[in-house]
Amino acid sequence: MPTAYFLNGPNVNLYGLDRSGTYGSWSFPAIRARCLAAAERAGLVLECRQTNDEGQLIDWLQEARERADGVLINAAGLSYTSIAVMDALLMIDGPVLEVHMSNIHRREAFRHATFISRAATATICGLGPLGYELAIGAMAELIAAGARR
Amino acid sequence: MPTAYFLNGPNVNLYGLDRSGTYGSWSFPAIRARCLAAAERAGLVLECRQTNDEGQLIDWLQEARERADGVLINAAGLSYTSIAVMDALLMIDGPVLEVHMSNIHRREAFRHATFISRAATATICGLGPLGYELAIGAMAELIAAGARR
Amino acid sequence: MPTAYFLNGPNVNLYGLDRSGTYGSWSFPAIRARCLAAAERAGLVLECRQTNDEGQLIDWLQEARERADGVLINAAGLSYTSIAVMDALLMIDGPVLEVHMSNIHRREAFRHATFISRAATATICGLGPLGYELAIGAMAELIAAGARR
Amino acid sequence: MPTAYFLNGPNVNLYGLDRSGTYGSWSFPAIRARCLAAAERAGLVLECRQTNDEGQLIDWLQEARERADGVLINAAGLSYTSIAVMDALLMIDGPVLEVHMSNIHRREAFRHATFISRAATATICGLGPLGYELAIGAMAELIAAGARR
Amino acid sequence: MPTAYFLNGPNVNLYGLDRSGTYGSWSFPAIRARCLAAAERAGLVLECRQTNDEGQLIDWLQEARERADGVLINAAGLSYTSIAVMDALLMIDGPVLEVHMSNIHRREAFRHATFISRAATATICGLGPLGYELAIGAMAELIAAGARR
Amino acid sequence: MPTAYFLNGPNVNLYGLDRSGTYGSWSFPAIRARCLAAAERAGLVLECRQTNDEGQLIDWLQEARERADGVLINAAGLSYTSIAVMDALLMIDGPVLEVHMSNIHRREAFRHATFISRAATATICGLGPLGYELAIGAMAELIAAGARR
Amino acid sequence: MPTAYFLNGPNVNLYGLDRSGTYGSWSFPAIRARCLAAAERAGLVLECRQTNDEGQLIDWLQEARERADGVLINAAGLSYTSIAVMDALLMIDGPVLEVHMSNIHRREAFRHATFISRAATATICGLGPLGYELAIGAMAELIAAGARR
Amino acid sequence: MPTAYFLNGPNVNLYGLDRSGTYGSWSFPAIRARCLAAAERAGLVLECRQTNDEGQLIDWLQEARERADGVLINAAGLSYTSIAVMDALLMIDGPVLEVHMSNIHRREAFRHATFISRAATATICGLGPLGYELAIGAMAELIAAGARR
Amino acid sequence: MPTAYFLNGPNVNLYGLDRSGTYGSWSFPAIRARCLAAAERAGLVLECRQTNDEGQLIDWLQEARERADGVLINAAGLSYTSIAVMDALLMIDGPVLEVHMSNIHRREAFRHATFISRAATATICGLGPLGYELAIGAMAELIAAGARR
Amino acid sequence: MPTAYFLNGPNVNLYGLDRSGTYGSWSFPAIRARCLAAAERAGLVLECRQTNDEGQLIDWLQEARERADGVLINAAGLSYTSIAVMDALLMIDGPVLEVHMSNIHRREAFRHATFISRAATATICGLGPLGYELAIGAMAELIAAGARR
Amino acid sequence: MPTAYFLNGPNVNLYGLDRSGTYGSWSFPAIRARCLAAAERAGLVLECRQTNDEGQLIDWLQEARERADGVLINAAGLSYTSIAVMDALLMIDGPVLEVHMSNIHRREAFRHATFISRAATATICGLGPLGYELAIGAMAELIAAGARR
Amino acid sequence: MPTAYFLNGPNVNLYGLDRSGTYGSWSFPAIRARCLAAAERAGLVLECRQTNDEGQLIDWLQEARERADGVLINAAGLSYTSIAVMDALLMIDGPVLEVHMSNIHRREAFRHATFISRAATATICGLGPLGYELAIGAMAELIAAGARR
Repeated sequence: MPTAYFLNGPNVNLYGLDRSGTYGSWSFPAIRARCLAAAERAGLVLECRQTNDEGQLIDWLQEARERADGVLINAAGLSYTSIAVMDALLMIDGPVLEVHMSNIHRREAFRHATFISRAATATICGLGPLGYELAIGAMAELIAAGARR
Repeated sequence: MPTAYFLNGPNVNLYGLDRSGTYGSWSFPAIRARCLAAAERAGLVLECRQTNDEGQLIDWLQEARERADGVLINAAGLSYTSIAVMDALLMIDGPVLEVHMSNIHRREAFRHATFISRAATATICGLGPLGYELAIGAMAELIAAGARR
Repeated sequence: MPTAYFLNGPNVNLYGLDRSGTYGSWSFPAIRARCLAAAERAGLVLECRQTNDEGQLIDWLQEARERADGVLINAAGLSYTSIAVMDALLMIDGPVLEVHMSNIHRREAFRHATFISRAATATICGLGPLGYELAIGAMAELIAAGARR
Repeated sequence: MPTAYFLNGPNVNLYGLDRSGTYGSWSFPAIRARCLAAAERAGLVLECRQTNDEGQLIDWLQEARERADGVLINAAGLSYTSIAVMDALLMIDGPVLEVHMSNIHRREAFRHATFISRAATATICGLGPLGYELAIGAMAELIAAGARR
Repeated sequence: MPTAYFLNGPNVNLYGLDRSGTYGSWSFPAIRARCLAAAERAGLVLECRQTNDEGQLIDWLQEARERADGVLINAAGLSYTSIAVMDALLMIDGPVLEVHMSNIHRREAFRHATFISRAATATICGLGPLGYELAIGAMAELIAAGARR
Repeated sequence: MPTAYFLNGPNVNLYGLDRSGTYGSWSFPAIRARCLAAAERAGLVLECRQTNDEGQLIDWLQEARERADGVLINAAGLSYTSIAVMDALLMIDGPVLEVHMSNIHRREAFRHATFISRAATATICGLGPLGYELAIGAMAELIAAGARR
Repeated sequence: MPTAYFLNGPNVNLYGLDRSGTYGSWSFPAIRARCLAAAERAGLVLECRQTNDEGQLIDWLQEARERADGVLINAAGLSYTSIAVMDALLMIDGPVLEVHMSNIHRREAFRHATFISRAATATICGLGPLGYELAIGAMAELIAAGARR
Repeated sequence: MPTAYFLNGPNVNLYGLDRSGTYGSWSFPAIRARCLAAAERAGLVLECRQTNDEGQLIDWLQEARERADGVLINAAGLSYTSIAVMDALLMIDGPVLEVHMSNIHRREAFRHATFISRAATATICGLGPLGYELAIGAMAELIAAGARR
Repeated sequence: MPTAYFLNGPNVNLYGLDRSGTYGSWSFPAIRARCLAAAERAGLVLECRQTNDEGQLIDWLQEARERADGVLINAAGLSYTSIAVMDALLMIDGPVLEVHMSNIHRREAFRHATFISRAATATICGLGPLGYELAIGAMAELIAAGARR
Repeated sequence: MPTAYFLNGPNVNLYGLDRSGTYGSWSFPAIRARCLAAAERAGLVLECRQTNDEGQLIDWLQEARERADGVLINAAGLSYTSIAVMDALLMIDGPVLEVHMSNIHRREAFRHATFISRAATATICGLGPLGYELAIGAMAELIAAGARR
Repeated sequence: MPTAYFLNGPNVNLYGLDRSGTYGSWSFPAIRARCLAAAERAGLVLECRQTNDEGQLIDWLQEARERADGVLINAAGLSYTSIAVMDALLMIDGPVLEVHMSNIHRREAFRHATFISRAATATICGLGPLGYELAIGAMAELIAAGARR
Repeated sequence: MPTAYFLNGPNVNLYGLDRSGTYGSWSFPAIRARCLAAAERAGLVLECRQTNDEGQLIDWLQEARERADGVLINAAGLSYTSIAVMDALLMIDGPVLEVHMSNIHRREAFRHATFISRAATATICGLGPLGYELAIGAMAELIAAGARR
């Protein structure tokens, strides 16, 4: 079965706990369970991880580069600032899908552009956990079609 | 059955005919057929139209405001320049999904930000016709969940 | 009797229907009636139209250029983006009054400057339908005084 | 009878004396008389003052905050630079009308945006003394309608 | 005989009527006649049209894409703002010549760059109707030489 | 006993009266009393003044330059715009503390940088009257330590 | 006893060792001791840590979110660049105080604005270790008053 | 004898007292004396004043407009920020000379452009009191030659 | 016979030798010959020169100012940077035609605007040597018509 | 006798011949004569030269560095663009006076800042040939006082 | 023997594996071996490390600060974004050499400036592993000469 | 033996004579001698020249294009401003090495980016004459390896 890594960046582990509701009411464990179920439906092995550490995220991307057929990524706050994460993505051959829970374009101006999107195949944002599910389904189709980043 | 409008802007009717391959190899009629099939699977009536005219697009958005439960939109070249189209979207209550065939963030700098995304619930870009299908599926779920723009 | 054209741009026909209340609670037909009454009081024939189409708006401006003594214009979303509408105004000899229902300077930054104001005699914004009435009264005085754009 | 303050900023006392004709041919005393007449017609007590001093202008605005039902202001050269004047206006509850003799949008680029307009209910510019009269009439209606800034 | 479309944008139909003389003293019908004569001399069928409507202009460009060997375009005010028109030009294979009556680089700053020039083979501006004639002659040579956009 | 001047700029006299609550609920006289008490505790003579006038503020700074061992300043709206006030501060040898009631970095963009901070020893903002007290305590320590601006 | 975390970012452990004297002559251990003493005086348990690692800093902020009543932070070089750290702060309910040893506004332009200040209750900068002590005292008062971020 | 006003802005009265030496070692009274002597040599009545107040400066400019044949001005910190002072200068018919003690172009970037220079006949900066003397001599010649601003 | 100078700037002598093909395959001597032939056909004496030196180019422009009826110029790399060359052009009375082999608007951003175009009557770019021929023909007509720069 | 070089840049040799009158009506030879006379009066040997060539200008500045006690320079169009000329000035020890015939701050925006002024002791602009005379007088005084750049 | 640290940032461990060839064909182990050999030739102990983690990189820089005579650094993607890494370098006394495999100035605009270069003694970029060798040789000479950062 | 040109721009002939020490204490003749020795060691014929003239520099680059196997260039002040020099470099096939004595990134902002680096193979800056030697060694290796620009 094809494998995809779903890597999540800083503070994603607190989703659903945020008083302001920016990231909805789903907790990260619940989102994770939903994603694993979606992966199973799509015939995909999903390696789902979260870290607050940019270095760790890059290590995982380099691991994914060797072991996975595609990468899903929500780099959260690092999306807007980390050229290093973008560079790691630029070295991946398979499809890369950028996802965000919220519609980043309706938030502060410094969230309107991400470095991730310069290296990603595609972007889905604003659909909450549903967007994660769609991305997993799309990943399965892209891998099946032999798509490249 | 719930109804969604899928409105396409300038030059979308030429998709697949572009020598540079920016928009892939699917012709607009083929994309349209694929979308209608996806809508049927999702239990959605889909009104799928294309125009090169900003005024026509706004007229249709005002029509959709009254007749549809949600709007999918690929405003193409108008996405980056038309505050008038954005204003029409801002008057819609149901969910609004912005879609683009290509990953606009990997193209010219003037395509990196859209006015549409300021009024949209969510954005999917870079997945070609697959992204259209995903958006249709998401729309059905959003309408069922009673989501607002 | 002197004649003025009052041309309204995209989405003005939805004023009063907007859930956010940006444009107040007066519907466009009601605003229109109020303007016609004001024109009658001011001894002015008022041709009051609305369109969502930039090309149509320019056609009407060219028509006004030949048939009217002055032009009132609320180009709405086109105000901020359309050099073509501005160019049409630049070819009009009589007074041109720019009006806006809302105070555009207290809204998003991209609404703080209009191309219309570069070609207009004067601007009134933020007074709702009262501003329209004032503009009609002013237009009558300007025409009587033989003012030019 | 309701009361409004009409406060004028630097160099307004020289209007009509300017060789370049930017501000028309009406002298400030003549404009003042015309405004007082308009106020009387509108059933408004008008306190009309002029100063070249930012501090004085702010003192008067604080006075108006307590004694007046609304404020008309032409802050002239301070309009573009004084956050302090804007802050004084932000503390006023009643309607605030910004007026300018000339169409500031057709002058130098540094006159295209004012801090005043961020705190004003509405703006009228480009109509010369007629614009002042219109503003006085509008003020009477706004006060009668219980409008807030 | 090879065919070229010469498409003109908003307000070009008023050339020669402009009081400021920006566009010279030749009326559009006179310019049109001069162009047709030049085309005849160059052995070119010239389809010469004007519209104030962006959507119409794009429709014609799509038509030209199928029926013409090359396109001459003066998009006037749309030149500076319309990515949609540029996108339509990007889908044309034959030579595209951008023309302007006036030297746009000596006018307002917002006219110094056009989206059209990003998609055009070449640009001629500032020569009035003579520039149109030169462009027609050049188009004949380019088509004869099998040039691409 | 060492002496410090605490100079307050435009509209500070209205603190606590502002409907929006930006500056909290403490009136200026109450803040003043609290500051004098804090100064007494810190063994400092505090000269506490407020003016709406930039010229007056500079005069006082020049006076403080000769008579005081340090200066506390909340230049309010002038903080962002007055190079003249900054120049007066640059001529003071003793410590200069900039204070603001509100956290100016969470307000409008034009309040994110002050000219005052370029001339100040230190800045405290966002703590309301407590920040004023802290600044007074710090001033006493800085003067005792012979600190310079 | 209420608890506060005082988290310090990259290179703060070298304060006092810097040849240029930017951060004064107090070593980090000495600063730390002074802060703990101040906390004791203020009746506050102070958890004082330093790290060069952004990921570690975010982990600690998430820990503080659960265990502390307030957070003091000197994110040092990360203050200007880390949206991820800011996002972690945005999820904290209690008061957040940003502190800097030096007056960052008198240093290089890229230090004039911090992402931290967008999420902080208040900022104190330029007072060296004294500023840290003041912040600890203020934190005790804010917690006692039940203040929120 | 012809008359010129020499008006000086904020903090000029402290020249020579500044520890940093930015403005040289001449005190304002000494500069004043030197200027009066230069005026006498040039056959010019010189009215030499200084104020820290923008409003006062404008009042004096309006007075000079009526009583003087030319104006010399060192608006100091107001030079960079005051459109109101510039507007007062724009209403003066005779020659206007802008002077600065220091070379403002070698200081902070915000001192590299002045509003004063947009309204002045000429500028002399960087020559200290010698520059003042030169300006007085030039003023005498300009007045004699009947020069206008 | 009327005379025109055709002055070419840096590196134009290497056209056709450039490996990247930016400037086509015509060598400068061949272009020169083609231009002389075109001039002969147009009844124009053409002085065609090339230099890599800005000073030389200005000397020639000053010579042309006295001896020629018009100037054609391809200032190449100097077009984007030399205000001195522009100033020399501003002193020429006859028509000035700016030409470029390549379409500079489709190259790097720093080539999108030229100082030359601010002083030129008209611009032709992107047509290679054909553009040079057209410019020569146009020059003959402009001189015959008595056109000014 | 002390020696000064007065070096003039591109097109200064055409002063007085310019149809637009930007640089007045004095020809360069006449200005030159006036400057030599002023130098004689001031007891200064003046080496007065003009070139259109940046390289020549730098060579002369290097010569002046060895042979002259001070440098007067009007780099004309090179003032705004030449870092190389500025660098040559930075290596001169004696006083450097920048002069311009016209008030460059009232001309196009790209003339509002010069690189020369970053290396000059002082600047005089807008006084025509009188400004040259003043600069020569000032140079004599500066050299006598042993001033450095 | 003198010691230098050669610290490499994110993704450098993948050099030579990148499909696009941006960083050449040398693998990191091969580059490392080449560097160690060069160090041996230069009489330098070289501590060569790589990490994807900013915090780790700063820890190593602080270690180098105590143990090494100089630092070579290729901070890769962190070069453009990390003020924290720059701050760590600013605390190093010995020479700091910045190296990059590729010529960063011919890549995307956001790679044209690095924070590292603000703290480095010198920069070598674009020479691939040869540049690393040159830097090692230079480091030996700089240490021998007692150079400081 | 392979040949390289080492071309130096304006003011390089004054290196070592600069009072501020920006370019170190080595005179240009001494640097030149050191470079020739390095070339001899590297088995390279080195043509080492200096000019203050942009045109001369371009002439030499065109000469080098035909006669040399590679080019070393320190364009000094022209580096930041001359697109013409960059264009000449773009036509060279062999390796191009940009060198600077000082670390230009630690100087004024306008020296942080060069046009030269857009056309160069590699850049070495901040190492003084040692950097020149390294560049010569590197050039020999690049030529031997058949490297292209």
